Amino acid sequence: MNRLIDALPDIKISTAPEDLICYSFDASGLEASPSAVIWPENTEDVVRVMRYAFDNGIPVVPRGAGTGMTGGAVPSKGAIILSLEKMNRILEIDPENLYVLCEPGLINGRLQRELERMGLFYPPDPASMSFCTIGGNVAENAGGPKAIKYGVTRDYVMEIEAVLPNGKILTTGVRTPKGVVGYDLARLLVGSEGTLSVFTKIRLKILPLPEDVVTLLVMFEDLGSSGHAVSRIISSKIIPRTLEFMDSEAIKAVENFKPVGLPKDVEAILLIELDGHPPAITKEAEKVADICEHLGAEVNIAEDEEARGKLWEARRAVSPALYHISPTKINEDVVVPRNRIPEMLNRLRRLSEESGIKIVNFGHAGDGNIHVNIMVDKKNKEEYKKGLELVEKVFKETLELGGTISGEHGIGLTKTSYMGMEISETEMSIMRSIKKIFDPKNILNPGKIFLP
Amino acid sequence: MNRLIDALPDIKISTAPEDLICYSFDASGLEASPSAVIWPENTEDVVRVMRYAFDNGIPVVPRGAGTGMTGGAVPSKGAIILSLEKMNRILEIDPENLYVLCEPGLINGRLQRELERMGLFYPPDPASMSFCTIGGNVAENAGGPKAIKYGVTRDYVMEIEAVLPNGKILTTGVRTPKGVVGYDLARLLVGSEGTLSVFTKIRLKILPLPEDVVTLLVMFEDLGSSGHAVSRIISSKIIPRTLEFMDSEAIKAVENFKPVGLPKDVEAILLIELDGHPPAITKEAEKVADICEHLGAEVNIAEDEEARGKLWEARRAVSPALYHISPTKINEDVVVPRNRIPEMLNRLRRLSEESGIKIVNFGHAGDGNIHVNIMVDKKNKEEYKKGLELVEKVFKETLELGGTISGEHGIGLTKTSYMGMEISETEMSIMRSIKKIFDPKNILNPGKIFLP
Repeated sequence: MNRLIDALPDIKISTAPEDLICYSFDASGLEASPSAVIWPENTEDVVRVMRYAFDNGIPVVPRGAGTGMTGGAVPSKGAIILSLEKMNRILEIDPENLYVLCEPGLINGRLQRELERMGLFYPPDPASMSFCTIGGNVAENAGGPKAIKYGVTRDYVMEIEAVLPNGKILTTGVRTPKGVVGYDLARLLVGSEGTLSVFTKIRLKILPLPEDVVTLLVMFEDLGSSGHAVSRIISSKIIPRTLEFMDSEAIKAVENFKPVGLPKDVEAILLIELDGHPPAITKEAEKVADICEHLGAEVNIAEDEEARGKLWEARRAVSPALYHISPTKINEDVVVPRNRIPEMLNRLRRLSEESGIKIVNFGHAGDGNIHVNIMVDKKNKEEYKKGLELVEKVFKETLELGGTISGEHGIGLTKTSYMGMEISETEMSIMRSIKKIFDPKNILNPGKIFLP
Repeated sequence: MNRLIDALPDIKISTAPEDLICYSFDASGLEASPSAVIWPENTEDVVRVMRYAFDNGIPVVPRGAGTGMTGGAVPSKGAIILSLEKMNRILEIDPENLYVLCEPGLINGRLQRELERMGLFYPPDPASMSFCTIGGNVAENAGGPKAIKYGVTRDYVMEIEAVLPNGKILTTGVRTPKGVVGYDLARLLVGSEGTLSVFTKIRLKILPLPEDVVTLLVMFEDLGSSGHAVSRIISSKIIPRTLEFMDSEAIKAVENFKPVGLPKDVEAILLIELDGHPPAITKEAEKVADICEHLGAEVNIAEDEEARGKLWEARRAVSPALYHISPTKINEDVVVPRNRIPEMLNRLRRLSEESGIKIVNFGHAGDGNIHVNIMVDKKNKEEYKKGLELVEKVFKETLELGGTISGEHGIGLTKTSYMGMEISETEMSIMRSIKKIFDPKNILNPGKIFLP
């Protein structure tokens, strides 16, 4: 690595053990030490790093905040971590053309706050929004609770400036709401998990901030009814901005870890938000409450900003809280067509009963996106093995119901061996060929998405 | 072609001169005779045609209704036209999961009507919606007036079944609102202009039908003010569902061809629609009217369904009406950031004055998407040459203002030589390599998008 430091004298590089440790893992729990960490400060720095890496065949792993769940930012053997965290500026907010231009290291939550102050709105808000970066969001095609109404990151990316593995700069997409000049490479980069290019600038579509929001907490004594409620709300022609689900284990985990007063004796809760013009959402909220009450649920409306904040704090605390149930959670994010949620929850319950392993479910029910958490202890080898076997079974049930094995976490390292369950040989072979076009030497985030 | 007929005895094939003539052109006005026309009835038919074509190196041009503006469906030398018009079924409408599964030959307008009857909504509605097919819409990433609020075809494609040039079937995308398993090949196929695969089934996202619509006709005595109105409406945090623009020449053309009572003495009109909950859109309509009146405009509200229908009839008649002004229109669909519309209109006026050639402008102002029509007579060679020279100048001005040379018509044949003005060598080379992955023998719609 001394050669690297000599070659790029004015770019911040570290090989100090404490830095290598900090950048050796992400939220997946996987871990491997990089050979160095580099902090570029502009596009030109990224170009120089990639040229050096290309010429010397050194693997490079781009990294936002490391909040990914599938190991996408975990270094491969001998890899350099390219941390984009210093490239974190908002370069332009344009309220007339409704876009924002930013650098990849910008924290999602900071962008949200800056825009809100101007009455503007960037909808994708993953649970990790206080830490995760826009670059990481684009690399993973991040979703979040508001996807049901507002779509995912893909739907907001207009233009990307990226550095290719050979150091060339690719600018793709348009700065207008429409554009059909050649193939849609911008969308191809979205969700490519850092395997095709390193983003250096991102232009995102933004929206006017909705006038008002109503938040409902709905409690079900019966798991199945909560699933039916989801379908009925949508069939009634109402699209809430969030339709979040937590099962009883998820509720208990939060209440034990960070109590906000959720009822511990129900089988499921839905956290439903409607946004728009006040009279319209008041009417919609009444309709939603009616539908849920007919299914035997109890409906509470959050009276003020504080009550709403508390509910969301609880929702966002689920993921960390689960570590208090068992040392290891194998965390999946399957999606089924939303009217198959009750069936999927039944199947998950059966899998849990058969294996004797606790499965905790929560997630974005409106999208059919369920975060399935298989609770085990990695140190108990037999239990951990059983947990991993459950993963495959969960995926099998998901695909049988017409679903997909990942709604927003991507493949990374943890799902590479399952990808073939969903993606045909024909499709996989096209994806591998595309990877080769962008990265003929396989130096950019190697080992991610594809099995070696 | 007799060998082809022998090889595929049970698929409808014609080499009759009257069929070859009917399938030799599209709305671009370009023309070339195919060697045969084939009408497959299912995926298996398409597989067999493509296998035969692949083995024998015969070019194949997939075709919807031939309403494309850039020659995408015009046959290349010796090509077979693969007309998808018999594969026109709606296979499934699912109001709980909010999707529709259809075949590529389904007419857009038929889908709209079927859905509306169920209180559902498929927003993309190109002006040719009564004729154009969903397959063609996906191939071109079709837009339409509602794109400003609802996005373009790309935003509605969930899953595609397609046949590759070698006859293999590729199913890509998901049937759920989210999915991030590998690269986004579904979005790569959208807008690929029939150069990568032949669509055989398409799953589209649908929405609940908005409760109500308000339509405003706004008349400006000053062209620039109409452009300013567009920016001001958006900056005021209102996103209309359409924000259509017609200049005085476009208005006159319609009134002479299909009179609906538009005022012939104004410089521009905006056709603005707001949709949603009645009290909300009434409030928004008042705000929009205020903004326009402050800019000196006269605002009329369409009182009923009939009045609204008439206005839209007028808007859709612009394109055909222009043929009554001059025999040839060179029709472009540039896009600029919406706050640059006044500047773009000025530059277009200057180009028209300098060249002495009439330029008629209309289009989707809310998106910054202007249909620029250069009015000439192809038989007058000098004039036609001047007209073609203007095209390049229009593109130059567009790109200078941060725009794109095509918002919804694509590249096809007519824009291949201009693509390099917008797309860098680096990006173009990636696009060409992607074409090679899908179509190594270059038999699928050859000569489109890329210069030979």
